[in-house]
Amino acid sequence: MAGQNNNAPVGVFDSGLGGLTVAREIMRQLPSENIVYFGDTARVPYGSKSKDTIVYFSRQIVEFLKTKQVKAIVVACNTASALALEEIKDEVDLPMIGVVKPGAAAAAATTKTGRVGVIGTRATVESGIYTEVLKEIDPSISVIGKACPLFVPMVEEGMTEHPVMMEMIDYYLRFLKKSDVDSLVLGCTHYPLLRSQIADYLGSRITLVNPAYETARGLKKLLEENNLLNRQKEQAAANLYVSDLPERFKAFANSILPIDIDRVKTVNVEQY
Amino acid sequence: MAGQNNNAPVGVFDSGLGGLTVAREIMRQLPSENIVYFGDTARVPYGSKSKDTIVYFSRQIVEFLKTKQVKAIVVACNTASALALEEIKDEVDLPMIGVVKPGAAAAAATTKTGRVGVIGTRATVESGIYTEVLKEIDPSISVIGKACPLFVPMVEEGMTEHPVMMEMIDYYLRFLKKSDVDSLVLGCTHYPLLRSQIADYLGSRITLVNPAYETARGLKKLLEENNLLNRQKEQAAANLYVSDLPERFKAFANSILPIDIDRVKTVNVEQY
Repeated sequence: MAGQNNNAPVGVFDSGLGGLTVAREIMRQLPSENIVYFGDTARVPYGSKSKDTIVYFSRQIVEFLKTKQVKAIVVACNTASALALEEIKDEVDLPMIGVVKPGAAAAAATTKTGRVGVIGTRATVESGIYTEVLKEIDPSISVIGKACPLFVPMVEEGMTEHPVMMEMIDYYLRFLKKSDVDSLVLGCTHYPLLRSQIADYLGSRITLVNPAYETARGLKKLLEENNLLNRQKEQAAANLYVSDLPERFKAFANSILPIDIDRVKTVNVEQY
Repeated sequence: MAGQNNNAPVGVFDSGLGGLTVAREIMRQLPSENIVYFGDTARVPYGSKSKDTIVYFSRQIVEFLKTKQVKAIVVACNTASALALEEIKDEVDLPMIGVVKPGAAAAAATTKTGRVGVIGTRATVESGIYTEVLKEIDPSISVIGKACPLFVPMVEEGMTEHPVMMEMIDYYLRFLKKSDVDSLVLGCTHYPLLRSQIADYLGSRITLVNPAYETARGLKKLLEENNLLNRQKEQAAANLYVSDLPERFKAFANSILPIDIDRVKTVNVEQY
């Protein structure tokens, strides 16, 4: 492993465009790292699908990323991190990191009441993965999970500023506001895009944890441990691939990433 | 073609469970017809994906249905009817019908003002297919289309009775209420499940057209023309297949179909 492929890119994948919030954090914290991103826009969303299906899709994507000679893989999707990462990690001869463990560790470090909230897709919340990981860190922590399936389509519909968005936040999070939860994991990569609305609604008593930020920190540590950090001085590159609708994806990528994206390529991921 | 396979089933497919509203109408109007239904729950939704992807998925499903020796195929999905039906009809040696033409014909017969509204997914509305078909029937008709991407996830989230549902209907349909549209096509197979809420909101001046109902009528005519009607006296059977989450699908099917569904089978449709 000793540093032969430090210049190789980091592979990052998600069911769609939400994982770009993770890519953005990696670009901010690790500006020398080249990135190959894959968004599975032909089969998005993952959050309402079964474990078997998500493992099957994730395996195909990992096979695709390997053809790009990636040196490490970031599962930038809470659902795939929750349902597929453990299953496929041992099959892959590369360092891999998901968003769940870094997010859970930050939440455990933040809570004073020992009551942590987790919001995400139905698949992530029903998997119980955040509860499992938080209890491994500290068995005294108790977790309240809540699936919020409409947040993703509302963000993608551009309704984050609309009054109905606040009603939907109230619909899903009212009980959390009344609880003694003091740390809330934004357990879906779209949710950082609702961060200020959720913070306004819940108030300052509840700290919001953004797993994207924590994952980029975790990736840095993982690359250091494996002697894989990129030492280059020049500007790193990002190559973006999707399984459908590259133009819409490109527009979204340019609206949130710190670098210009000229081109997004389409891949038939079912072939892998 | 002369009547050799009258007892063969009719193949019906959709991106997920919405097409069951079409299967329900076929069961009501053609109770002797056996049905093989496929719902692409692993790759749902189609409405926000590209034409190429929807054609590719539809071809795979048609190949699967052919292995079940179907005598005709109903594309019970507005998006696939809009984007894939014309493309693949000539490749398939079976009578095929989609939901768009029957829905458009009923709307053309209903309107007095000559102004027809069409609501559906983004892909269906942006395809302009309803406008095209309505103008073929009567060039003087003008069409107002409106994509309502949040209706499907809200129905699937069980929020049809929630006050936020009425706000979302207001958000999408306010301009239609003020227009001189007098006939509105429910151009997505989920929307009949919102029929009473939409009717309450729009009032009696606007007639709602349900393409599911019209498609079952069109199927009857198509089978008659091809001498393919099933003459059996015994109760017809329905075999349901999905690409993911059969249990959830079964529960939904039993909540809306007039017959009991014991079992829903899972198929890996990518193999076809």
